[in-house]
Amino acid sequence: MTNGRIRITLDESEMPTHWYNIVADLPTPPPPPLHPGTHQPVGPDDLAPLFPPELIAQEVTAERYVEIPEPVRDVYRQYRPSPLVRARRWEQRLGTSARIYYKYEGVSPAGSHKTNTSVPQVYYNAINGVTRLTTETGAGQWGTALAYACALFGVECEVWQVGASYDTKPQRRTLIEVFGGKVHRSPSTLTGFGKGFDAGHPGSLGIAITEAVELAAQDEATKYALGSVLNHVLLHQSVIGQEAVLQLAKAGESGADHVIGCAGGGSNFAGLAFPFLRERLEGRQAPRITAVEPASCPTLTRGEYRYDFGDTGGMTPLMKMHTLGHDFVPSPIHAGGLRYHAMAPLVSHVVEEGMIDAVALHQSECFETATEFARTEGIVPAPESSHALAQVRRTALAAAEAGEEPVIVVGLSGHGLLELGAYDSFLHGRLGDDPLSDEDLASSLAAVPRIG
Amino acid sequence: MTNGRIRITLDESEMPTHWYNIVADLPTPPPPPLHPGTHQPVGPDDLAPLFPPELIAQEVTAERYVEIPEPVRDVYRQYRPSPLVRARRWEQRLGTSARIYYKYEGVSPAGSHKTNTSVPQVYYNAINGVTRLTTETGAGQWGTALAYACALFGVECEVWQVGASYDTKPQRRTLIEVFGGKVHRSPSTLTGFGKGFDAGHPGSLGIAITEAVELAAQDEATKYALGSVLNHVLLHQSVIGQEAVLQLAKAGESGADHVIGCAGGGSNFAGLAFPFLRERLEGRQAPRITAVEPASCPTLTRGEYRYDFGDTGGMTPLMKMHTLGHDFVPSPIHAGGLRYHAMAPLVSHVVEEGMIDAVALHQSECFETATEFARTEGIVPAPESSHALAQVRRTALAAAEAGEEPVIVVGLSGHGLLELGAYDSFLHGRLGDDPLSDEDLASSLAAVPRIG
Repeated sequence: MTNGRIRITLDESEMPTHWYNIVADLPTPPPPPLHPGTHQPVGPDDLAPLFPPELIAQEVTAERYVEIPEPVRDVYRQYRPSPLVRARRWEQRLGTSARIYYKYEGVSPAGSHKTNTSVPQVYYNAINGVTRLTTETGAGQWGTALAYACALFGVECEVWQVGASYDTKPQRRTLIEVFGGKVHRSPSTLTGFGKGFDAGHPGSLGIAITEAVELAAQDEATKYALGSVLNHVLLHQSVIGQEAVLQLAKAGESGADHVIGCAGGGSNFAGLAFPFLRERLEGRQAPRITAVEPASCPTLTRGEYRYDFGDTGGMTPLMKMHTLGHDFVPSPIHAGGLRYHAMAPLVSHVVEEGMIDAVALHQSECFETATEFARTEGIVPAPESSHALAQVRRTALAAAEAGEEPVIVVGLSGHGLLELGAYDSFLHGRLGDDPLSDEDLASSLAAVPRIG
Repeated sequence: MTNGRIRITLDESEMPTHWYNIVADLPTPPPPPLHPGTHQPVGPDDLAPLFPPELIAQEVTAERYVEIPEPVRDVYRQYRPSPLVRARRWEQRLGTSARIYYKYEGVSPAGSHKTNTSVPQVYYNAINGVTRLTTETGAGQWGTALAYACALFGVECEVWQVGASYDTKPQRRTLIEVFGGKVHRSPSTLTGFGKGFDAGHPGSLGIAITEAVELAAQDEATKYALGSVLNHVLLHQSVIGQEAVLQLAKAGESGADHVIGCAGGGSNFAGLAFPFLRERLEGRQAPRITAVEPASCPTLTRGEYRYDFGDTGGMTPLMKMHTLGHDFVPSPIHAGGLRYHAMAPLVSHVVEEGMIDAVALHQSECFETATEFARTEGIVPAPESSHALAQVRRTALAAAEAGEEPVIVVGLSGHGLLELGAYDSFLHGRLGDDPLSDEDLASSLAAVPRIG
């Protein structure tokens, strides 16, 4: 059935030439974003202070495919197509009959999937004369990716890093600086919103977003870049899943039975999952698709589906999404990239439509799985990605018990080489879980619509 | 002339099936290692306490090609063939007419070339019933690579990490632990040799080697593994250059004009350079080959060529090599992997034979180059590799001035994601150079034999 290859690479010529837009294939259109003042659907003019016209067009397009500009593909070529790898050693360690393939985005310059969108975002800003971009970063992956892309296109980059992350992860700050970016601790004294907090406040993604947006809105030549949540970000990430669909076929598989990814803002998950959802909608494959989130920030499994702000300060449009409330501050787990109060509207919509599953896991199980993965596959997963791996582990062990041989595709969104402090906590017994019990988690899952 | 590809990958089926042994092609044989007591050439029995028979055989073989065992190739396949990448953005930044290709070993599980030899070393030990391996590590790359390979083959791994590195780089220690290894600060109180030092002594590679060797010599089921210097280690690294020769041809180049690598113990350099030297000896290519070392530890450019010990305690055989003396302690530069008092006997021999050049550079120039490289190519180089890049920069700028269009192949032996503290020092003006002036360095260079 398979051809025995371990690492399925693609040639440059097989890299996608277009991004895939799931909106074109959805039976019902996702609800529009609303203006925070008027509560009417936002128009292009409302977004113009923050984003260049091409990104605004991509935010609302119903086109099925959007061409990737040549200068963007030129950068993608430095690290894409990313490998799809058969986790044979891990399979053996698990004693599973499942075939596990991981799509590894840690090969990118920033060490995660985030460059897939930072490069086009900076490109579109640069050709529109923007000279400075502001953004927020939690775990630091997004700030790194934006700083790298800005270095390529000669744009200044200023990053508001969540205070708790800034204080404990100086390496991440240095990496952003190596790429030429400037880092501020958030909340900062550089913005009106930031000044409202006490010095030393640990911050949150929602606060950092407000700060970065506030700065961008004040200055014509400065715009803002967001690393997840929005439609155009999810669009850019579709290169992941498009490649994986092709690679799985090259591996000799007729299709995936399970597609699993971690979900914070939702972009890496959607990037992998939506092209597989396309395959399912067109009847070529029938994978079950699962988003995995942390028990400490269970947006999809315990959040409400309603209109909410993307930031704490209420400066962004209102978006219909699964949310824990825009003032929700999750407990300080190590997967900083999953500590966002809401979920991408498009991901939320397909969950509501019953097209994908969601599950929430405790971080201790995730780190245990990640360490096992490192010792067999040789890659130290990002804490975010470890959530997806833990769900793969559950699925693979269940398959072994049932005597089934499913094909599992999992998104390994990045490496954890700048998160070794978290692994140190795990290895030396200092890692805590939030207080939600397994029963709590199980009952919350029951509330999520399932595929038929 | 070139075919315009940026990243030249090879298929699994194009991965080398054999290691290449330069000894078979040398006009004069390299001088043998001598027993430290008798000063007679060492025989296999002398090495048996430390190494399994296959590695001893590889240490002395004159066979041109040694087959790579299938279980080793099976691990190589997870990350090899490694990419050869055209550094087009960096070329543009430099304004050079040179075409620069970097062979990137940072894609390996440990983040450097070291897994190319840790995997076969652990494999041969495992099939001989060895249950524990000891080793030393400086920068930490080697300890990481050995721990990873030990995890794959079920062997215990104990690493003596140079004290100064242990104290300042806890992330590296954690990474070794993630892979299941055990880390001791060297000098330690676990060995007779270590007990002779004061608590808190910063240590050195030479001291750590003595400690690891002492432990291994005491116990039948424990052996020792060395990450560089020895012939069998250089042999294993030949996969790098063999792939690069093939990839350069696939890029449409008729051959390299310059092959440049950094040299500490010499294995990553030899791994890239020796297959190109083979091409030159056989008249297919005519590259100039240059080893780059730090001004603070200028083994090839200022050391004596004579018999010396590989360790500080004098437990290893005497090897004829360029050495600064086995009790030499280099100043604490950030390229820990280049802080070794001597150079691989095989590399020393070909330098003496006038087959390769050597040059020594200050670390500030290297970090400046590495930062420029990161901002264009998106990879943060290991401080060791930055030495090779700085020499490439000089060569490329000279080519621009002379209106030449040379093809430069450079070894990028690893990434520097666990060395961001060093970059922080550089970016914030806290990086010092050792006191050797440029004139000192230039005059020492004149003493090195040059190719005709």
